[in-house]
Amino acid sequence: MPDFSIGVDLGGTNLRIAAVSGEGQLLEKVTLGTKLALGRDHVINEMCDAIQGLSGKYEAAGRFLGAGIGVPGLIDLQTGMMRKAVNLPGWENYPVRAEIERRLGLAKNGARVVLENDARVAALGEQWLGAARGVANMAVLTLGTGIGGGIVLGGKIWHGMNGMAGEFGHVTIEPEGHPCGCGNRGCAEQYASASAIVRMAREAIASGQAPLLAKAASSDAEFGAKSIYNLAMQGDEPARRIFRSFGRYLGLLLAGLVNVLNLEMYVIGGGASSAWDAFAPSMFEELRQRSVVYAGTAPADPLKSESLGKHEVASAHSESRGERKTIITRALLGSDAGLYGAARVAVLAV
Amino acid sequence: MPDFSIGVDLGGTNLRIAAVSGEGQLLEKVTLGTKLALGRDHVINEMCDAIQGLSGKYEAAGRFLGAGIGVPGLIDLQTGMMRKAVNLPGWENYPVRAEIERRLGLAKNGARVVLENDARVAALGEQWLGAARGVANMAVLTLGTGIGGGIVLGGKIWHGMNGMAGEFGHVTIEPEGHPCGCGNRGCAEQYASASAIVRMAREAIASGQAPLLAKAASSDAEFGAKSIYNLAMQGDEPARRIFRSFGRYLGLLLAGLVNVLNLEMYVIGGGASSAWDAFAPSMFEELRQRSVVYAGTAPADPLKSESLGKHEVASAHSESRGERKTIITRALLGSDAGLYGAARVAVLAV
Repeated sequence: MPDFSIGVDLGGTNLRIAAVSGEGQLLEKVTLGTKLALGRDHVINEMCDAIQGLSGKYEAAGRFLGAGIGVPGLIDLQTGMMRKAVNLPGWENYPVRAEIERRLGLAKNGARVVLENDARVAALGEQWLGAARGVANMAVLTLGTGIGGGIVLGGKIWHGMNGMAGEFGHVTIEPEGHPCGCGNRGCAEQYASASAIVRMAREAIASGQAPLLAKAASSDAEFGAKSIYNLAMQGDEPARRIFRSFGRYLGLLLAGLVNVLNLEMYVIGGGASSAWDAFAPSMFEELRQRSVVYAGTAPADPLKSESLGKHEVASAHSESRGERKTIITRALLGSDAGLYGAARVAVLAV
Repeated sequence: MPDFSIGVDLGGTNLRIAAVSGEGQLLEKVTLGTKLALGRDHVINEMCDAIQGLSGKYEAAGRFLGAGIGVPGLIDLQTGMMRKAVNLPGWENYPVRAEIERRLGLAKNGARVVLENDARVAALGEQWLGAARGVANMAVLTLGTGIGGGIVLGGKIWHGMNGMAGEFGHVTIEPEGHPCGCGNRGCAEQYASASAIVRMAREAIASGQAPLLAKAASSDAEFGAKSIYNLAMQGDEPARRIFRSFGRYLGLLLAGLVNVLNLEMYVIGGGASSAWDAFAPSMFEELRQRSVVYAGTAPADPLKSESLGKHEVASAHSESRGERKTIITRALLGSDAGLYGAARVAVLAV
C-alpha cells in the first residue's frame, strides 16, 4: 500500500539497493558486489536491473516515487554528472543520471532519479531515521579513509552553490601539518580519519617507543585502526595517546563547525567512530576549550548524550526556554545511513 | 507613500537611527553620540525618542513596519534579551526588546521590535543593498577590533540554534597560537583583525627589524592599523609582511568557510578591510591552496571581482551552466550596512 522509493549505495565493495517506504520502513534490500573492474556500463546495468526488479515488485502495492543514488564523488546537481570520482574510473563527465533515467524509462511515470554524494545522503539518512531523527538542523562527519561530511538544514541536504558544501575533511586544522592529496597541508582528514590512526601508529612504532603496537603490526596481517583501538582499550599508553590526539583534532574541527553553524546536532559516523570510547573524552575537552558557542550550550554530561534514547534526544532539542544544547553523538545507522538517505532524497525531490 | 521600517545601530561611539523604505530607500538618518556612561535607561530613552520622532514623521506617508536594533552582543532571540554584552554594562539579562516595545507602545499597531547582533545585521545589509545584492546565500566577515560574522541563507539571517551562528572570529586557525579572551588559543581574530595588525607591528618593532614602524609608533599619537597600512603602501617591507601574514590567515579562515558552506559570496567588511590592496593577494593565494572547493570555483581573476559592477556580480552568479564562481569581495556599505540590515530585519519579521 505505501508509496516507496529506492535508495542505492554505490560503495567500493558493495552495491546495495533498497526499497523503502515513505515512512522509512525497509521493504527489501539487495546487496551485490561492486564489479568496478567490469566497467561503468556493467555497474550501471546491474544497478538498473536491481532497481527495476524492486520497483516492479512493490509497484502493485504503492506508487514508486523515484530512486536516489549515493556515489563517492562530487556531483553537479544541475546536470546529474559527476565532476570528480577518484574511485570510479570512467564516471567523470558522463551523464550518469540521464543514462539511468533512460534505462529505467522513468520519464513516463514522473518518478525521478537523483544522484547525490555518499556523505550527504548518509547525513540525510541519520537525520531521517537515525541519531538525529526529529532534529531539523544537523551535520554528519563520516570518519573513514578520509572524512566525508554532510549538512542538513530544515530537513534537507544543504548543498551550497555547487553541491560542495560539507567538505569538512579538507578544512585546515594544522596550518603547517601533513600534506593532503588535495594539495593543501594539515587537512582534518590527515588527523581524524581511520588512515590518520594508522599513520600515527606507524610514527609511534618508528619512534621505537611503542613495543606493543610494533608487535601487533608485525604479527597481525590485518593491522589497522581496529587493532590499535583494541590495544588502547587494553591500556597500552602509546595506543591511547593516538586516540587522544585523534579526539583533540576532531574536537578542533568540530569547534569550528559549532562556531560557524550553531547546529542542534553533530553526528559522528564512519568506521573510525567505533573508537568513540577512546577518543570522545579528549574531543569534548577540546570542544569546550575551543568553542565559545559550545561552552555556552554544552550538555552537563556530553559523554552521556550518546546514550540518550530517541525520546530524550527529541526533548533535549525541543524549545526548552532557550536552553537548547549542542549535542555531539554517534551515528546509529552504520552503513545503512547512506541507503536510507538515498531513498529519502528521491522522495524530497518529488 | 512607501511602507517603511527603522534601523538602529548601537555602536560604542554613535547611536544611529534611520528610517528606510521597504525598497531600501533612505528616508532620514539621525546620528547621536552613544552616552553609555549615562546608563542603559538613558540610552534606551534616547533611542526610543528618535524612533518615535522618525516613525511619527513618516507614518503620514506609509505604514511603519517595525524597528530592528543592531547591538554588539549575543542575543537570545526567543526572549529578546542580551546573553552577553561585554561593552554594554547593565544590558545583560535585561528585557531590552520588551522594554523598547513597551516605551514605543507598538503592540497596538502590530509593528515589531527585533533585537539582533550587529555583525548579523551588517551581513543582511550587504546582502540587501550592498556588495551581495541579489545573492541569496552569503556571509560577511567584519574585521574590526575583533571579527564579527554573519551568514545569510535564502535572503535571511541564519541564526543557528541559539542565534550564535557566524562566530567566525573564534574559529581556531593556529592551534598553539595566541591566547584569546574567549579562553581559546589561536582564534582567527588574533590574526586577521585590526588589533592583530597592531600587535604584529608591535612585535616587529620589538624585534628591532622595523625602523620605519618604530618611528611611526613613537611619533604618531594615533598609531594604528591605518598608519601601518600607509607604510606598507609606501613599500616598507616589515609593514608589507604584516599584511601578507594577515592575508594568509584570513585566507585560511575563508578556506574553511568555503569548504564547509560553499556559498556564492563572502564579503569582507569592517575597518581593516580598507587594507584590501595590501592583504588580498596573499589571501587569494592561501584560499586557492587551502580550499579544494575554492580552487574548483575561483574566478579567473579574483582580485578583479571586487570591482564588478552590480549588474556583473548578478550575472556572475546567475545560473551559467553550473559554472558558478565563489566570489570574495569587499563590503560596499561601510558602517551603514548594519543600519540598513537592522531596518531590513524588522521588515522580514513582519
